[in-house]
Amino acid sequence: SEASSNAATKYSIAVIPGDGIGPEVVAEAVKVLDAVTEPAGITLDKTTYPLGAEHWLATGEVLSDETMDKLRGHDAILFGAVGAAPNDTRIPSGILERDLLLKLRFTFDHYINLRPATLYPGTTSPLAEPGDIDFVVVREGTEGLYAGNGGRVRQGTEHEIATEVSINTAHGVRRLVKYAFELAQKRPRKKLTLVHKHNVLVNAGRLYQETVNEFAPQYPDVTVDYLHIDAATIFLTTDPSRFDVIVTDNLFGDILTDQAGAVTGGIGLAPCGNINADRTAPSMFEPVHGSAPDIAGTATAQPVASILAAAMMLEHLGHEDLADQINQAVRRDLETHGNEQRSTDQVGDHIVAALKA
Amino acid sequence: SEASSNAATKYSIAVIPGDGIGPEVVAEAVKVLDAVTEPAGITLDKTTYPLGAEHWLATGEVLSDETMDKLRGHDAILFGAVGAAPNDTRIPSGILERDLLLKLRFTFDHYINLRPATLYPGTTSPLAEPGDIDFVVVREGTEGLYAGNGGRVRQGTEHEIATEVSINTAHGVRRLVKYAFELAQKRPRKKLTLVHKHNVLVNAGRLYQETVNEFAPQYPDVTVDYLHIDAATIFLTTDPSRFDVIVTDNLFGDILTDQAGAVTGGIGLAPCGNINADRTAPSMFEPVHGSAPDIAGTATAQPVASILAAAMMLEHLGHEDLADQINQAVRRDLETHGNEQRSTDQVGDHIVAALKA
Ligand SMILES: CC(C)[C@H](C(=O)O)[C@@H](O)C(=O)O
Ligand SMILES: CC(C)[C@H](C(=O)O)[C@@H](O)C(=O)O
Repeated sequence: SEASSNAATKYSIAVIPGDGIGPEVVAEAVKVLDAVTEPAGITLDKTTYPLGAEHWLATGEVLSDETMDKLRGHDAILFGAVGAAPNDTRIPSGILERDLLLKLRFTFDHYINLRPATLYPGTTSPLAEPGDIDFVVVREGTEGLYAGNGGRVRQGTEHEIATEVSINTAHGVRRLVKYAFELAQKRPRKKLTLVHKHNVLVNAGRLYQETVNEFAPQYPDVTVDYLHIDAATIFLTTDPSRFDVIVTDNLFGDILTDQAGAVTGGIGLAPCGNINADRTAPSMFEPVHGSAPDIAGTATAQPVASILAAAMMLEHLGHEDLADQINQAVRRDLETHGNEQRSTDQVGDHIVAALKA
Repeated sequence: SEASSNAATKYSIAVIPGDGIGPEVVAEAVKVLDAVTEPAGITLDKTTYPLGAEHWLATGEVLSDETMDKLRGHDAILFGAVGAAPNDTRIPSGILERDLLLKLRFTFDHYINLRPATLYPGTTSPLAEPGDIDFVVVREGTEGLYAGNGGRVRQGTEHEIATEVSINTAHGVRRLVKYAFELAQKRPRKKLTLVHKHNVLVNAGRLYQETVNEFAPQYPDVTVDYLHIDAATIFLTTDPSRFDVIVTDNLFGDILTDQAGAVTGGIGLAPCGNINADRTAPSMFEPVHGSAPDIAGTATAQPVASILAAAMMLEHLGHEDLADQINQAVRRDLETHGNEQRSTDQVGDHIVAALKA
């Protein structure tokens, strides 16, 4: 079955619930997915992969080639969150991030890391005057400082040098920028902001800026501007409604989208699509937030980010109508219950109810 | 004259007003400096260096070795801002930043980039519930991604690779972390937060984390914690009062301090000390903000950041009492006039008046 075809009625979905609150929020996303697909006559065949901290502790394996091969066979991946508690010294920092989450993003060429930021009615921004916030960050997902290129020389001595190399390719930047322009063109405001730091990172920054300059004439109705990353964090605080589509590199995108989550009522509402737009491997959908081990097991995790990520998955699979049903149900639910104290599964139940309303 | 001695009554100060609003704010800082030093019997011999965009356009030179030698002879440098208008295509991005500002920071080994963030009474934060914000960012100033190490291969072709290398040394990180611990120990809350991204930047991140771990036992009264840069931007939005001293690398410090400026009532209030704590070369004091060419000449620039930077300079020169007089005058002035519309020189005049009150 061709994942992008509107005609398909059956999809094979890999579910990686992960650690901490990951399984808790993914359960609600699956609940909502089932509620929206079943009446439409669409079947999601789900296979759960028990990966993450516990799996690593039990087996010594983060993510084997064999499992990667299996994952490759699915139409899409629904991902929860991975990461042990920060004080759990059994798991070195970076192991799960790099050998699981980033391995998936890199191996499956998830070059578009798509992160919408929306301030929903019924939710509260920590900003005094947030305005209408509705923008999307198109973050690069397969290169930059995330390439894992660097090392430590004379480690542990007073002469140590530790390096991190940001790798940026025309190939990677061009496909990213093109995607961002196309997205901007489809949106009412048609505005694209490149965020970088080309006054200091002159090599990577100029590659980004020149690529934007090169594509801009093909999208004459899109307004283009540029902000340094430091200035962008100011505007996200003082005037977030100025943004429509932001295109940026992997690390700046990571930083901006957490800040964006904060200004739009909390990181618990922010979804992420790790998209291979060429569809040469399954795309992956996850909340922006992490495994939050501190609140795991308390049934207080906010599942909306995971539910919105599930909607992004349906859209990617060609079912924009169903994605829209979820988005509208979330909107209605937040409008009514946004500021109530609810348990994780209550939120899921309410959104299922809103779907049917 | 030994710059750090309390006994000195005469200092030689280099003034680099720079571009845009740089000269406008520096004029007010000089006004306030004179008003506080003269009654104390202290003379500041000022030499102005006309560097920046105009100088480059006129002479083709950003900052010559000869000028560097002269600058080295001063006790301190008061810096405004450099940078041409973003649409001024005569000046390639990065030239002034790297060959002037960063050249000064690197050559004079300004390894402590010290940036206090304070929410003053009388000023308005864009946050709905800012709380008491009073923290200091100890940003590394001489390495990381600012090292200028990187390049472009197959530039301009579809096979281009652009790299940026973050260089981090035990030497650089140790002196930074030590300074941050000592600062934290002197402050009432005695809290140090390392901000990095050690789950992705495992080499540099671990060097930072291990260095903090190594120094921590020498400062048993200092509470230490760690945040990833993305999480730090969330807390700066939702709970900025949780921070006391932040220690971080060059780029993360750049990003965090602009965001910190925004949450504490605007980047126009945020000063910066570029400090060579070994005093082997003059330290340099500047506002965090840039040259803001869009408002240059309109007399609307906020000079407080530059005035507070001048106070940091006096403190560095050993005159904590005079620095304190300026800080108190700024505080009183903002309390009274903080939300009024005032011209740049009115603010300076009011602060001089508040000094005498
Ligand atoms: C867990 C971490 C590797 C990851 C990232 O930095 O990309 C996370 O912060 C995110 O934004 O998805
Ligand atoms: C102008 C630029 C090079 C500089 C920096 O990035 O350090 C500025 O943003 C700052 O924070 O002082």
